[in-house]
Amino acid sequence: MDTTTNPHLRSFIEVNADSHFPIQNLPYGCFRPKSGDFTRVGVRIGDWVVDLSVLEKEGFFEKTGLGDHRVFHQPTLNSFMANGRVIWREVREILSNLLRHDNPKLRDNNDLRSEVIIPVNDVELQLPVEIGDYTDFYSSREHATNVGIMFRGKENALMPNWLHLPVAYHGRASSVVLSGTDIRRPWGQIKNDDAQFPEYTPCRLLDFELEMGFFIGPGNPLGTPIPVSKATEHIFGMVLVNDWSARDIQKWEYQPLGPFLGKNFATSVSPWVVTLEALSPFKCTGPVQEPRPLPYLNITPNQTYDIQLEIFLQGQNMSDRHRLSHSNFRYLYWNIQQQLAHHTVNGCNLRTGDLLASGTISGAEAEAFGSMLELAWKGTKPLRFPNGEERRFLHDGDSVTMTGWCQGPGYRVGFGEVSGKILPASKLL
Amino acid sequence: MDTTTNPHLRSFIEVNADSHFPIQNLPYGCFRPKSGDFTRVGVRIGDWVVDLSVLEKEGFFEKTGLGDHRVFHQPTLNSFMANGRVIWREVREILSNLLRHDNPKLRDNNDLRSEVIIPVNDVELQLPVEIGDYTDFYSSREHATNVGIMFRGKENALMPNWLHLPVAYHGRASSVVLSGTDIRRPWGQIKNDDAQFPEYTPCRLLDFELEMGFFIGPGNPLGTPIPVSKATEHIFGMVLVNDWSARDIQKWEYQPLGPFLGKNFATSVSPWVVTLEALSPFKCTGPVQEPRPLPYLNITPNQTYDIQLEIFLQGQNMSDRHRLSHSNFRYLYWNIQQQLAHHTVNGCNLRTGDLLASGTISGAEAEAFGSMLELAWKGTKPLRFPNGEERRFLHDGDSVTMTGWCQGPGYRVGFGEVSGKILPASKLL
Repeated sequence: MDTTTNPHLRSFIEVNADSHFPIQNLPYGCFRPKSGDFTRVGVRIGDWVVDLSVLEKEGFFEKTGLGDHRVFHQPTLNSFMANGRVIWREVREILSNLLRHDNPKLRDNNDLRSEVIIPVNDVELQLPVEIGDYTDFYSSREHATNVGIMFRGKENALMPNWLHLPVAYHGRASSVVLSGTDIRRPWGQIKNDDAQFPEYTPCRLLDFELEMGFFIGPGNPLGTPIPVSKATEHIFGMVLVNDWSARDIQKWEYQPLGPFLGKNFATSVSPWVVTLEALSPFKCTGPVQEPRPLPYLNITPNQTYDIQLEIFLQGQNMSDRHRLSHSNFRYLYWNIQQQLAHHTVNGCNLRTGDLLASGTISGAEAEAFGSMLELAWKGTKPLRFPNGEERRFLHDGDSVTMTGWCQGPGYRVGFGEVSGKILPASKLL
Repeated sequence: MDTTTNPHLRSFIEVNADSHFPIQNLPYGCFRPKSGDFTRVGVRIGDWVVDLSVLEKEGFFEKTGLGDHRVFHQPTLNSFMANGRVIWREVREILSNLLRHDNPKLRDNNDLRSEVIIPVNDVELQLPVEIGDYTDFYSSREHATNVGIMFRGKENALMPNWLHLPVAYHGRASSVVLSGTDIRRPWGQIKNDDAQFPEYTPCRLLDFELEMGFFIGPGNPLGTPIPVSKATEHIFGMVLVNDWSARDIQKWEYQPLGPFLGKNFATSVSPWVVTLEALSPFKCTGPVQEPRPLPYLNITPNQTYDIQLEIFLQGQNMSDRHRLSHSNFRYLYWNIQQQLAHHTVNGCNLRTGDLLASGTISGAEAEAFGSMLELAWKGTKPLRFPNGEERRFLHDGDSVTMTGWCQGPGYRVGFGEVSGKILPASKLL
């Protein structure tokens, strides 16, 4: 029994019931205090950040497998993530204990407490992980079907391979940015259906994609696949992902080698990495998989997580943000163990810090679609907003925010937000 | 006038006329002396490696823009590559001068010379660059046409976008390995045309792809494209690339998002990075581009390099290697400036160390095809070898070696080799 997820656990730090960050969560991130000079690792609780570099210096983790190895006085989580689940659990238990309402050790040590517990408004968050390779899956049956219907018709909506393997492609690691980073509308080569030649123009069909991603802890050597039954040993935790997409650039370029410039101008991730430990009370079963996957992909039951997801949009002339969608991570057909096993079945090596994202997470109903392409059905059903504006795709000045959380009895374990605002395209090159 | 490429230049180090590494070349690599304890940067000349970490320590580069900044006491070229062309040229001139037959400074300093000039057989070469992102283009018109004919028929061989933009996709950086690394035959999901369901099996259609790649020196900020006219300022140098391919895995998985497990089990690169300075005497014009590319891709003339390329195969029961192909880098339709400009036109950021590869380099004649898929025409025209063996695709135990060089008057500026041997698939998972 993992005591760190006990619903009755309380901290001496006050946390609202609708906060994403109660003591049951304790997600990891990287930050620089506005008054400080280096980036270090922290854990979020309520509206506070716990500075682990100080706790480490003070010897709080010396009895774990980390010993006196410094992993929190680091600008990314990679060193810590490389250590594996045994040590992740040891550290989590120490933190969970230290933050309990009935443990005086930190609570009543005013000097230490003021050094270690920092208001989140007093820190600058950073990208939490140094990402080596970024892979994007395409694991929502509803999304793949919607896109298939729009571009190939109902008869051939799902490709023949789709129900047999978790389709994926390599994305761009260099342009993964932290939530809050503005997104510049990209230029690109676009060809209208009725035009003879392509043109060079700013993207007109700019879109978001609601996704989640997970980070690799310990990797695998080249040539040595990770069996599906051991996949979670290699998964540290999860974040929200917005895979910004330029639909018109993508449409013209993607045959036959897949998306490239239509995707690699930016991918946003949320700052707090929620561990599989924190998610474990919210395990649930995913969709029935029929035909039954090949043995290397087969894991029974199809275990996933019940994570509610929402998308909000606020145009620059709107007084408030408006909800566009309410989806759930559990809708995904392929689970994260299967994604990881498939990725390595050919011997491909994963490294600590690699990001594997889910692909757009759409549900069966239009209210649960995960992209503007689907929500406005290729522009044919524009979304209407209270101030009279319409959207087929994103306008300059639009802010898109995605959020996700697991609902427990009286508390939430959440991911915070991933957000980004569209800036107008730059002047002609 | 760049004196470092003068054909009459000679070194006090003896170099055969058919060596790839005369004083006009001076390519960079990373190595650990077999007697040494750390990896450092060196330059190759003839059968010797010049240890730049020692020259740096001795102050030989202090008068360059590097000052006392240490870039050669490093396990990769990244620190040096980040400095840009002005400094690359300063260092090259110092090295070129120092190694001249008529300069006594190093030649007659026996102590320093024995410390700095190391036989290449006494070192262990390492992957020269820490690669952030790896992009693979598809820039040979002949290759794209051949593949198109085989899979879609003559009428639709080239996709409509192909003549308008350099098609590319993101590859896997983690599995880029140094020449000489054995290649394990991958397992994967494969579906035969006449089968109802896919099976899980070792790859049966294992292939190579003859490519070249270039490494990024200074990168660009996210959101700021690099104009085609400034592209070479960001390119440090080039290597040979073998993009190993599992054709049967690729065929089943690649729709609609492109190649993934069919490619990412291994990509081999040659150890010595040949600079654009060393290649400059071998500039030539590439194919005529019609229709004329859009302005952001337009550079006149279509400038490329005359680099002869060969592929050899030796099976484990063959007494010698046999040449399969003789191609040339100049056959590529899209040049490296266009590839780089296209990659960044949407604001995508490149970082120091990124690898951009060409795609398979095929010529017009069957003798110049760059993959087994094309050479044996999808298995319909097996290659025959003197010992009676045939090949449609690669067998276990086959060694594939690719080589490339520019032919000058009485000397060659070359890339050495990229080689790899196929190991049998591992036992069932």
